[in-house]
Amino acid sequence: MVNDEMKDGVTRLFHGRAVAVVGASTSPGKLGHDILANIINGGYEGAVYPVNPRAGEVLGLPAYPSVSDCPSTLDLAVVVVPAPFVPGVLREAAAKGAGAAIVISGGFREAGREDLEAEILAVRRETGLRLIGPNCQGINYRPNKLCASWPLVTAAGSMAVISQSGTVAATLAGWAVDEGLGISATVSLGNQVDVCETDLIEYFAGDKDTKVIALYLEGAKNGRQFLEAARRAVSGTPIVALKSGRTKAGQRAAASHTSSLAGSDQVFDAACRQVGIVRVADIEALYDSAKALQSLELDGGERVMMITSSGGCGILATDEAESCKLRVPPLPPEAIEDLGEAGLLPTAILSNPLDLTVAPAEHFEAAVTVAERHKLADTYLLIFGDPIPGATEVVQKLKARMGARFAVAYLGGGDVEKEERLLMHAAGIPVFPTPQRAIRAIRDAAWAARFRARATNTSV
Amino acid sequence: MVNDEMKDGVTRLFHGRAVAVVGASTSPGKLGHDILANIINGGYEGAVYPVNPRAGEVLGLPAYPSVSDCPSTLDLAVVVVPAPFVPGVLREAAAKGAGAAIVISGGFREAGREDLEAEILAVRRETGLRLIGPNCQGINYRPNKLCASWPLVTAAGSMAVISQSGTVAATLAGWAVDEGLGISATVSLGNQVDVCETDLIEYFAGDKDTKVIALYLEGAKNGRQFLEAARRAVSGTPIVALKSGRTKAGQRAAASHTSSLAGSDQVFDAACRQVGIVRVADIEALYDSAKALQSLELDGGERVMMITSSGGCGILATDEAESCKLRVPPLPPEAIEDLGEAGLLPTAILSNPLDLTVAPAEHFEAAVTVAERHKLADTYLLIFGDPIPGATEVVQKLKARMGARFAVAYLGGGDVEKEERLLMHAAGIPVFPTPQRAIRAIRDAAWAARFRARATNTSV
Repeated sequence: MVNDEMKDGVTRLFHGRAVAVVGASTSPGKLGHDILANIINGGYEGAVYPVNPRAGEVLGLPAYPSVSDCPSTLDLAVVVVPAPFVPGVLREAAAKGAGAAIVISGGFREAGREDLEAEILAVRRETGLRLIGPNCQGINYRPNKLCASWPLVTAAGSMAVISQSGTVAATLAGWAVDEGLGISATVSLGNQVDVCETDLIEYFAGDKDTKVIALYLEGAKNGRQFLEAARRAVSGTPIVALKSGRTKAGQRAAASHTSSLAGSDQVFDAACRQVGIVRVADIEALYDSAKALQSLELDGGERVMMITSSGGCGILATDEAESCKLRVPPLPPEAIEDLGEAGLLPTAILSNPLDLTVAPAEHFEAAVTVAERHKLADTYLLIFGDPIPGATEVVQKLKARMGARFAVAYLGGGDVEKEERLLMHAAGIPVFPTPQRAIRAIRDAAWAARFRARATNTSV
Repeated sequence: MVNDEMKDGVTRLFHGRAVAVVGASTSPGKLGHDILANIINGGYEGAVYPVNPRAGEVLGLPAYPSVSDCPSTLDLAVVVVPAPFVPGVLREAAAKGAGAAIVISGGFREAGREDLEAEILAVRRETGLRLIGPNCQGINYRPNKLCASWPLVTAAGSMAVISQSGTVAATLAGWAVDEGLGISATVSLGNQVDVCETDLIEYFAGDKDTKVIALYLEGAKNGRQFLEAARRAVSGTPIVALKSGRTKAGQRAAASHTSSLAGSDQVFDAACRQVGIVRVADIEALYDSAKALQSLELDGGERVMMITSSGGCGILATDEAESCKLRVPPLPPEAIEDLGEAGLLPTAILSNPLDLTVAPAEHFEAAVTVAERHKLADTYLLIFGDPIPGATEVVQKLKARMGARFAVAYLGGGDVEKEERLLMHAAGIPVFPTPQRAIRAIRDAAWAARFRARATNTSV
C-alpha cells in the first residue's frame, strides 16, 4: 500500500490507504465507535480494519482480534485503547508496516503518566512510526476523505486548522461547514509527543488543497523551529495564530492542560510579527482572519472604501477602520461628481463610507465602478444591511474584473442573507457577520500582504 | 378605540388597536406593500386600513382613498408616502383621532429638506400627534403583535431594541430569532423629529414584557434628558448601549447619516458609567450583553468559576476573565479534595478552570455542587466544548436551586449544540458562541449588578 510519495510518515498520516482503528467499539457514544463511524461516513475510500478482540464485526465491517491480524499491511493506525495498552499496539502497527499512528487515548503526561509517554516516544524512535497525540481528537483531511476525528465534517474547503484544543478545531470546522466554506483539514495536536505544529506547518505549506493555516496554540514545542517553519510557510500559505496563555492565570491553566511552557506572551507576539504570522486574540478572529486570508488577494495597501446600504453600519465600520489604523480616504470632488451621475438614489450620501441607503445590488456595482475609475481604494468593504437579493452576482462580477479585493458584511437580511452568504462563499468572496469583524479581518489580510511584499522585495 | 390607558401618544404607538397604512401598495418589494404584509402576517389583531387612492383592495383588505375615508377612528398611522405628502397625511390622521404616527418615508433633514421636517414638527405641535421618524424602519412590538417594520419577526422575547439604524435593529432581532430568544420590540428612531431615545427608554422601563433595553445610538437628541431617563430606568431595566462615532472619521460619518451631533466620546463614556448604562463597542457585544442582562440575576460579585469539557476553551476563558478584571479564584485544598470524590473522570484537572475533559453533562452538576458547598464563585461559566446532550436539563436544575448565575458557552457541538442552545434559551439560560464572548457578557452583567446594588445602598 506504500508508494514512493508516501514513504514519509507525515505524508502517510494524511494520504494513507489502509487504516486500522484499534479499539473499535460496537457501542454508539464510545470514541472507538464514533471515530470508526466518521471514517466510514466521511467517504474514506481506502481499506478500514476495525480491531476488537471481542467482536466479529463492527459497523458492518469484519473486525480483527489484533493489529497483526489485519489482512494487509497498514499505512496508519488510529488508536483508542486505554493508555497502558498503547505502546504494545504501536509496536504491532509498526511491525504491520504502518508509517503513522493517531493516538486518541488520554492518560499520559497530562495524567501524570510521563512513563507511558516516554514509552511511546521510545517506540517512535525504535520503529520510525510517526505519532499524532496522545490525548488528542484526531485528524480530518478532506483530500483523502479521512475523518479520523469528531464531529463528522465532510465539506471540503481550503482552511487547515491545527489545534492544541480539539474543541477549537471542531468549532472552526463547524462554522466553516455552516457557512458553506468547508475545511481542508483539522488536526488536533494533543500532547505532541512526536508530530508537532512545526511538522504540520511544513506539511500544509506544501499542500495544494490548503490556502491558509489557522493555528490554536498553548505553547510551541520548539519555539525556534516553529518560527522558522512559519517564516518559510507564509510566503505561500498565510498563517493565523490564536495563542492562549496571554495572562498569568491563563498560563497556569495552559500548563495543566497540555503541559505547555507558554513563555512570555510579548516575546511570542513580537516573534509572530517578525516572521509574518497574523496573531489574533479570540476564536472568532481566528476564523475571520483565516477566511479573509484564504480568499482575498491584496497588495498590502491600507485604503478601504466602504459602500453600504446601512448608514449605521457604515459608521461602525469607519470607527473600526480608524481604530485598526486602516485609511478611509475621503472622496475627491471629481469622484463625488461621477457618483452623482451613477444612477444612485437621491438619498445616497456620497462620501466614504458611501451610504447608498435602501438600494438594490446594482447600485453597489455602479458605486464600485466609479471608485475604480478614480483608484480610490485598495480594498472594498461592501455592507449589505438589508435583504438584498442578487448581491452575489454583483460582487462576483466585480471580483472577476478587479480581483479578489472585496470583503462583504451581510447583516439584517434574514433568509436572503443566509442564501447569499452561501453563494458568496461558493464564489470565494468572504462574508462577515458584522462590519467590525470584516474590518478587523481586512486589517489582518492587508498586513499579511504587506509583510509578504516586503519579504519578497528584501529577498530580491 | 381609545381607552384611558391609551390616551398618551407613545402608549397608542405601541398599543393602538386601529392602524392605517398610508401608501399601502399592491407591488411586492415596495415598502408600502411589505410593511402591510408584515402587519398582517405578524398576527396583529386590531383593525388595519390600507390607504391607497388607486386600489380597491390591497393584500386582501379593502383599501381607502384617503385617511379621512377610513371606517373608524385611528390610533396609529404608518406613513410610507413621498415626503412632500407627509405633512398633509399627518394632519388627516390627527383629525381622524390618531395619537401617533410612524413616518417611514425619507427625504427630510437627511436629504436637505429641513423645511419639510419643520413642517411635520409643526403638525406635531398643533395636533399633539406623536411621531416616530421620519426616515426610519418602523416599530415591531410583540405584546401588541404589531410588526410595522421589516423584516417580519414574530418570536416574542424580553429584549427591546431601540436603534438609530434599522439594520442594527434588524440584525439583533434576526440573531434573537435564530437563537430562540425573540424580542419584545424593535424601534427604529430615524431622524427623531419627535419621539426620541429618551421617550422610548421611559416607555420600555415601564413595559412589563421588556427585561432589557439594547440601544444603538449615533448621538443623543438631548444628552441630559437621555442620561436622566437612563438613570431612572436602570434600577429596574438594564440598558446596554452601542454608540458609534467613537473616532473622528466615525463622527463625520454619523453627522451625515442622521445629522447627529456626537459630542465627545470620552464624555459619553464617562456619563454611561455614571448613570449605569453598560456601554459596548460592537454589534455582537450589544447582543451578548443584552442577552446576559435579561437572563442573569447576579449580586455583583466578581468571582467566576469556569467548568469546562474543553481544556483549551477553559484557558481562553481564563485569559479573557483576567483581561476583563474578573476574579478567577484558585480552589482551596478542601474543595479539591471534595472534587476528587465527586465521581469526575480521572483525567479531570481540578483547578479553576475546572477541566472535566470529555465528560457527560452530569459531571458539570457534580462539579457545581462541590463549588456551591465551598462558596467558590458568584457566577459560573459552564463551557460545553463537545456535543453534550442533556446539558440543558443539568443547567436548568442548577439554576432552579442556585438562581440565575449560570452562563453557558457551547461550541464544537454540531447539531447537539444547536438543539441545546434553543432549549437553554427557552429556559432563560444565556448561551454564547465562544468562552470569550461569554466572559465579556458576564463582566457587563456583573458590573450592572454592582452598580444597581451601590445605587440602592446609596438611596437607603
